[in-house]
Amino acid sequence: MNPYQSSFICVSLILTTMLSTVTAQTRRQPVDLLVLGGTIVTMDQTRRVIHDGGIAISQGRIVSIGPRADIERGYTSRQRVSATGKVITPGLINGHTHVPMVLFRGLADDLDLQEWLTKYIFPAEAKNVTEEFVRVGTRLGLAEMIRGGTTTYCDMYYFEDAIADETAKAGVRGVLGETIIDFPVADNKTNAEGMAYVERFVARWKGHELVIPAIAPHAPYTVSEEHLKAVRAFSDRTGAPIVTHISETKREVDDSVKAKGASPVAYLDRIGFLNDRVIAAHVVWPQGTDIAILKRRGVGVVHNPQSNMKLASGVAPIPQMMKESLLVGLGTDGAASNNDLNMWEEMDTVAKLHKVFTGDPKMISAQQAFELATIRGAQALHLEKEIGSLETGKRADLLVIDRDTLNQIPLYNVYSDLVYATKASDVETVIINGRLVMRNRRLLTLNETAVKNDARTFRDKIIKSFGTSAAP
Amino acid sequence: MNPYQSSFICVSLILTTMLSTVTAQTRRQPVDLLVLGGTIVTMDQTRRVIHDGGIAISQGRIVSIGPRADIERGYTSRQRVSATGKVITPGLINGHTHVPMVLFRGLADDLDLQEWLTKYIFPAEAKNVTEEFVRVGTRLGLAEMIRGGTTTYCDMYYFEDAIADETAKAGVRGVLGETIIDFPVADNKTNAEGMAYVERFVARWKGHELVIPAIAPHAPYTVSEEHLKAVRAFSDRTGAPIVTHISETKREVDDSVKAKGASPVAYLDRIGFLNDRVIAAHVVWPQGTDIAILKRRGVGVVHNPQSNMKLASGVAPIPQMMKESLLVGLGTDGAASNNDLNMWEEMDTVAKLHKVFTGDPKMISAQQAFELATIRGAQALHLEKEIGSLETGKRADLLVIDRDTLNQIPLYNVYSDLVYATKASDVETVIINGRLVMRNRRLLTLNETAVKNDARTFRDKIIKSFGTSAAP
Repeated sequence: MNPYQSSFICVSLILTTMLSTVTAQTRRQPVDLLVLGGTIVTMDQTRRVIHDGGIAISQGRIVSIGPRADIERGYTSRQRVSATGKVITPGLINGHTHVPMVLFRGLADDLDLQEWLTKYIFPAEAKNVTEEFVRVGTRLGLAEMIRGGTTTYCDMYYFEDAIADETAKAGVRGVLGETIIDFPVADNKTNAEGMAYVERFVARWKGHELVIPAIAPHAPYTVSEEHLKAVRAFSDRTGAPIVTHISETKREVDDSVKAKGASPVAYLDRIGFLNDRVIAAHVVWPQGTDIAILKRRGVGVVHNPQSNMKLASGVAPIPQMMKESLLVGLGTDGAASNNDLNMWEEMDTVAKLHKVFTGDPKMISAQQAFELATIRGAQALHLEKEIGSLETGKRADLLVIDRDTLNQIPLYNVYSDLVYATKASDVETVIINGRLVMRNRRLLTLNETAVKNDARTFRDKIIKSFGTSAAP
Repeated sequence: MNPYQSSFICVSLILTTMLSTVTAQTRRQPVDLLVLGGTIVTMDQTRRVIHDGGIAISQGRIVSIGPRADIERGYTSRQRVSATGKVITPGLINGHTHVPMVLFRGLADDLDLQEWLTKYIFPAEAKNVTEEFVRVGTRLGLAEMIRGGTTTYCDMYYFEDAIADETAKAGVRGVLGETIIDFPVADNKTNAEGMAYVERFVARWKGHELVIPAIAPHAPYTVSEEHLKAVRAFSDRTGAPIVTHISETKREVDDSVKAKGASPVAYLDRIGFLNDRVIAAHVVWPQGTDIAILKRRGVGVVHNPQSNMKLASGVAPIPQMMKESLLVGLGTDGAASNNDLNMWEEMDTVAKLHKVFTGDPKMISAQQAFELATIRGAQALHLEKEIGSLETGKRADLLVIDRDTLNQIPLYNVYSDLVYATKASDVETVIINGRLVMRNRRLLTLNETAVKNDARTFRDKIIKSFGTSAAP
């Protein structure tokens, strides 16, 4: 190569580089929202943590995620969230609740499940649950969940169509199950009415980008075999997930063995009910081959440690379930038995409870506890392709967490901090499906003052209906 | 009586009433601080709850407490805190911690006690604990505790004189124990040095209105019989409380039985160590007659549910201890094993843990859990005549709690709300010894920004000293 050729190549290279830089700058892809700076805890397969990261979001999905510099080079947006010095995580997934029951928070405590249900909750529901009640309670619960960083929740209650409506309006993601139960309830007096309601409900919401309509047979002891089979057939026909309670108490299991000759799980398998659209809450008392059955059928299991503790239901063998690769998530249960919708406390509790219960302080690490509230929670709801981690192509459900609060200082390990030290009040900004629903601790899709006032008005009605005083 | 007489008496009565009203108004007693309005949860012997209450405070003590109207009629002050719509409670009592260890928060988790201590905590302490470290950590811990409504804490660490200095400056109440341990530690290399330090320390702080200097033999397995007896003699001579750890793990008990032929409690009683100035943390594994011994000797016991769970130490038989009228309080333990100094979560946990562990959902009601953090906590520290409830003559240590946060709505029962739904972030105003140390969530005795920055600087030193990286 002569000097002339060499110079020519050199100049060409420089020109090409300059040109491509200019092109890249002019060609930066416009997106709906950029989140820039901060430490991103992706929860992807390699559990990548990106320092000084960035996320580009368009049409509700993550278009790109990586180092901030790369994202800034490739994308442009008029809407930006700065997360410098903060932590970005997937939104939390509350795998099991009854959201309107937040209006019964603290109505009755320190009772066993049967007494609590039959003397307080069922009477309170019989006298108070209307569509209006459900809407007011749902808004209160949604506001609390958004503030605490929950971006997806799985629900089971009555008037679920109204819950779906409020959830969609608030911009929150939900797997929302209308209850099927073999006694008359607030919205439906017979099984036929219930099934017709679910038919309309699922038809209305199917394909919605936030609401996944589901059918929710209450439990194998409150819904007959015939009706459970009809639920399964409905789910097969429509693709709707099935939300239910299984083996919450020892008594339920004992009764099932006595009446049906099988544990609730074995019984449900025998009648062909279980498959990979089923989401089972609790499973505190799996017997014999129950875990193997749940695994074989691809059932999602949702653990509710604080509710199971408060009602003294027992401690589900979650470490064993995780070891056997069951799909396990985490939930709060209704606020009447918790008494909040706080996934941070649930994570802290799940890690600590199983340590003391197994006698092994290595059980359920901070990272595993965080998985239960994110990617594993997504698996339990059969939504792991859409949510649960921050990856290109997934729904943009994410949190920006303030790291400058006293309870989080100093910082050595981000999972330890998230599980053992972060509080719901540290969540600063919440994005669901690419939309800002809370920014700098201000709710954007709900009028917080109105939500609170409506809830207080209902409280007074509930007290009156109950003939009780709010003592003390 | 003729009409004339009757009229005369009537007029006299009216005049007397008018006169006494005028006199009362002009004679309203000036006090240092008035807290007016709100629901006062007194935690006095009758567990009185005063709606629309008021508290008059002077010279660090409660001068009067009652209905707001009565307090306004009787007292006047230029300094007033309005608590209308809020809840007023006694300040929380954190019965056991190692406050500077907050600088090790999240340094190592999910390990058993021995591995955690020997591989992480002891080496980290050996390399980092200086008076400066202790001061920075204490300020961080005090700031977190004030924010969360802790007004009294019981501590055990090194350089306790510096801890006392920072605690007094921050206006927080503390039973502060200088560690006595049979190996060289940061501040004292020999037992003689340690005892000399405690001598000076107790002499310096004795009679201080916030700091109660104490002597803190680490545990019966780390301090010899001779040295324990010297501690007891010192306490007898000076009146200083004795802070120690007893029966935290099963292994400690087994080792004690093997080496000394007695459980740690029985051994300590045998050598004449136990009395009503002893404050024993943990007592997870009382054996045989241990509870009876602790009761007979008037020992205070501090339960640390979250630390015991996280280190898988076990579940202390608190319901049994309470049934047998032992003096039981509640603590967080150090933030290295918790990982926070949050008494609200400790209350929530204590109520739930013992329900599931005993299988009885009526175990430890919300009210009992709140007692453990207030009046029972005061009894465990042998300070029930001064703190733990809001009563005339007691120290004015109290909280004003915001009731307008989403997680607390609606409200049916104030104890349920305090234990199962209130968060540390709901504490709005904190008064200790009649002094405002936080008002409307602003710290008044500590510079929060400086506290955080100092802590972060130490974090970097700790990481360097440890030859580890802050992963991830």
